[in-house]
Amino acid sequence: MSNSDIDNLIELMAKLPGLGPRSARRAVLHLIRKRALLLTPLADTIQTVAATARECLNCGNVGTTDICDICASEKRATGELCVVEDVADLWAMERSGVFRGRYHVLGGTLSALDAIGPEELRIPRLVDRVTGENITEVILALNATIDGQTTAHYIADQLEGRVRLTSLAQGVPIGGELDYLDDGTITAAMQARKEL
Amino acid sequence: MSNSDIDNLIELMAKLPGLGPRSARRAVLHLIRKRALLLTPLADTIQTVAATARECLNCGNVGTTDICDICASEKRATGELCVVEDVADLWAMERSGVFRGRYHVLGGTLSALDAIGPEELRIPRLVDRVTGENITEVILALNATIDGQTTAHYIADQLEGRVRLTSLAQGVPIGGELDYLDDGTITAAMQARKEL
Repeated sequence: MSNSDIDNLIELMAKLPGLGPRSARRAVLHLIRKRALLLTPLADTIQTVAATARECLNCGNVGTTDICDICASEKRATGELCVVEDVADLWAMERSGVFRGRYHVLGGTLSALDAIGPEELRIPRLVDRVTGENITEVILALNATIDGQTTAHYIADQLEGRVRLTSLAQGVPIGGELDYLDDGTITAAMQARKEL
Repeated sequence: MSNSDIDNLIELMAKLPGLGPRSARRAVLHLIRKRALLLTPLADTIQTVAATARECLNCGNVGTTDICDICASEKRATGELCVVEDVADLWAMERSGVFRGRYHVLGGTLSALDAIGPEELRIPRLVDRVTGENITEVILALNATIDGQTTAHYIADQLEGRVRLTSLAQGVPIGGELDYLDDGTITAAMQARKEL
């Protein structure tokens, strides 16, 4: 093989999700070929991110400041708080552009098997925020999995009577074909059918 | 979205082959979560590679020195020179461990369409090496594509009579099933059949 620094880089890149040894080699060769356009900017940016990336102390979002941009923005103080499992879910919500309030990132779901209780997630902090901040509605945007829904039920129990609680609608996804949907989704969509 | 440095990192990662916007986001979140184990080592290594990676002046291999490890090693001075299109091909040969000589990386193939002539590749340098170094055999290990084979023929013309010229055998790959092989491979394997 070639030099050890390059081998190290390939080995580290191969640990990223979605990359294996072969695609890591291809990526590293591509980087070295595009030194000015890609390798140098990437080296600088990754160094900056390694030095500054941190979790928002308020909501658990990832950013380069102690309080993330969303928590810091006065425009987002709508009183609506969207609870998500993960930063990736927060990013997905932001891409849709539909939600203008603030977030609370749990950092996972409750799981008896993995010994993850409320203390391991940001659930106590969520209860604090609902009490301390001026929250009018908590939107539970957890994944429609068993663990996600268990966690949603637990949070609903904790917050019941203190704030308006809602969850994302379930139904047929846009562009979805009935033939390819699972029974659970079709059942949910039928039960929540709307007047035209 | 989150902070601009993190966005920049996602944008740069998305330019790597094999990664798109979605997998780049996933990779960056993974990096931030595994800061000590992955993000910091990766930042350091990529900085080192950006500062030191270069092409070997002799053979075109990628390394962190002006003359690559293989060209510098006396053990590899077997008189055999393996000509490959690309550094990735050189790495593939090295992984197989079958070849103990030195390499010559062309950096592509001849292509009239893309206006790539012998001068754009390392073909003049190859002719120089065959004259200057103590080369007894040139093994053409170019890809079995039309461009690869055209390039191999051109090189063979240039070097004819000056050195022993060979090329990789063509035939059924190990583990290959006849039913899934193309006609050309089966024809080549039949024509080059061996006595048992």
